[in-house]
Amino acid sequence: MGKTGEEWGFPADRLWQVAEALAQAARGPTLAQFRQHGLGIENKAGVAAFDPVTEADRAAERAMRDLLAVERPDDGILGEEYGAQAGTSGLTWVLDPIDGTRAYMSGTPTWGVLIALSDRDGPRIGIIDQPYTAERFMGGAGRARLDGPHGSLPLATRRVAGLSEATVFTTFPEIGTAAERAGFEAVARVCRLTRFGMDCYAYGLLAAGQIDLVIEAGLQPYDICAPIAVIEAAGGIVTDWQGGPAHGGGRVLAAGGPEVHAAALEILRKVPA
Amino acid sequence: MGKTGEEWGFPADRLWQVAEALAQAARGPTLAQFRQHGLGIENKAGVAAFDPVTEADRAAERAMRDLLAVERPDDGILGEEYGAQAGTSGLTWVLDPIDGTRAYMSGTPTWGVLIALSDRDGPRIGIIDQPYTAERFMGGAGRARLDGPHGSLPLATRRVAGLSEATVFTTFPEIGTAAERAGFEAVARVCRLTRFGMDCYAYGLLAAGQIDLVIEAGLQPYDICAPIAVIEAAGGIVTDWQGGPAHGGGRVLAAGGPEVHAAALEILRKVPA
Repeated sequence: MGKTGEEWGFPADRLWQVAEALAQAARGPTLAQFRQHGLGIENKAGVAAFDPVTEADRAAERAMRDLLAVERPDDGILGEEYGAQAGTSGLTWVLDPIDGTRAYMSGTPTWGVLIALSDRDGPRIGIIDQPYTAERFMGGAGRARLDGPHGSLPLATRRVAGLSEATVFTTFPEIGTAAERAGFEAVARVCRLTRFGMDCYAYGLLAAGQIDLVIEAGLQPYDICAPIAVIEAAGGIVTDWQGGPAHGGGRVLAAGGPEVHAAALEILRKVPA
Repeated sequence: MGKTGEEWGFPADRLWQVAEALAQAARGPTLAQFRQHGLGIENKAGVAAFDPVTEADRAAERAMRDLLAVERPDDGILGEEYGAQAGTSGLTWVLDPIDGTRAYMSGTPTWGVLIALSDRDGPRIGIIDQPYTAERFMGGAGRARLDGPHGSLPLATRRVAGLSEATVFTTFPEIGTAAERAGFEAVARVCRLTRFGMDCYAYGLLAAGQIDLVIEAGLQPYDICAPIAVIEAAGGIVTDWQGGPAHGGGRVLAAGGPEVHAAALEILRKVPA
């Protein structure tokens, strides 16, 4: 579980204000291109003269970096598009302007803008923002909340007794390597329901108590830092496939409660490195 | 392509009014239970004393049937939950109050309310309504439009030159029988991108020109009548895996344009019955 704002030693309210401002700043550039490419650009160009996904990705990260330069000049930044920038405050903003590029390209509202704020121990504040549905999953430093078009809801994971009651999500059936796929399938086989294709939105659903497990592999740090903060704040558990910290990326196991986490880990930890 | 309202011989404007009123009537009952079961009901009950999905399904279909009893008493009805009711007008409303039950159970906004109006030749008017995102894909009798929270957009499929440029969707990797799965995989293997998990929302994305193919099997008539009307009005093609009419359900191939339809059909028609 993340520390509360008071114990943490950093100004949580102020940092949440900045985090939400970052999410807001990314909505314009990401929405500007979303679902536009299929309605003309690709058809007209015929060739890859202009890549609307990459352009939206970069514009959104620039908007967030510009805001941080003014509001939090001493913090570090790690972003998918523009790399790492060292800071002096002990805090680093971890940014993925469009997580789920293939979702974005296909028009599905399951991609998201991922914003995390990490200290030396890992992510403390996280946002999974879905600009098209206007849903914002937020967790860490005293907050665990979904704001959306149907109002505001507390985020809390659910606890089911075991895998036979669990719903498991991953984005692609391939998962990663053949061994990683086999590991996932060994878990999925004993789960009640397996679903695909939700990208980072699946982590939001886990935090909201709708599903029980998300299992992925081959992640980058900026893919998972925000989900970790959101899920931990909602009472869930995120580790790698050996039970260790997951904020470095790689193989990730996110669970709503300790029972399903332990049961899935028992299977996944046997997957060869 | 569907006939225009004028050629059709039925009052298209009036029927669209009723169709939209049906979609509106289903939003309340479906949203009332959506994402609620994970937040208490299932956990509290422990057993299946109360099935919120089925209850929402039935309540939504009842709301639509009640409205039709007043507004269109002479039309027939075919609904997922309450079966067939004969009419005398030559028109039948085909209703699926919650298409994508597993999506609904998992909190993903990819389920939908499917409403079609069919005459003896098949579906003429269709709505794919997503209550949570407030998106309404509409097609037939002179209309091809998406209304949603970001405004109103014309629906038009895109045409790509062949499967190597195509994005293909289906809901479950299993598809249906082993032969059906193999058929799907033979198409997917030569496509540019394969994605899963979108339920009826995928047909809306096809009509909106975001993706190129949706391939499914084991469908009921109420699963596919509304998508057919929407996609045909947007310029796309929906057939079974032999190139014949698809409104009876079963194996379905929906395509944005004739090139990808023909290329996918060439593969799928070899799948044994």
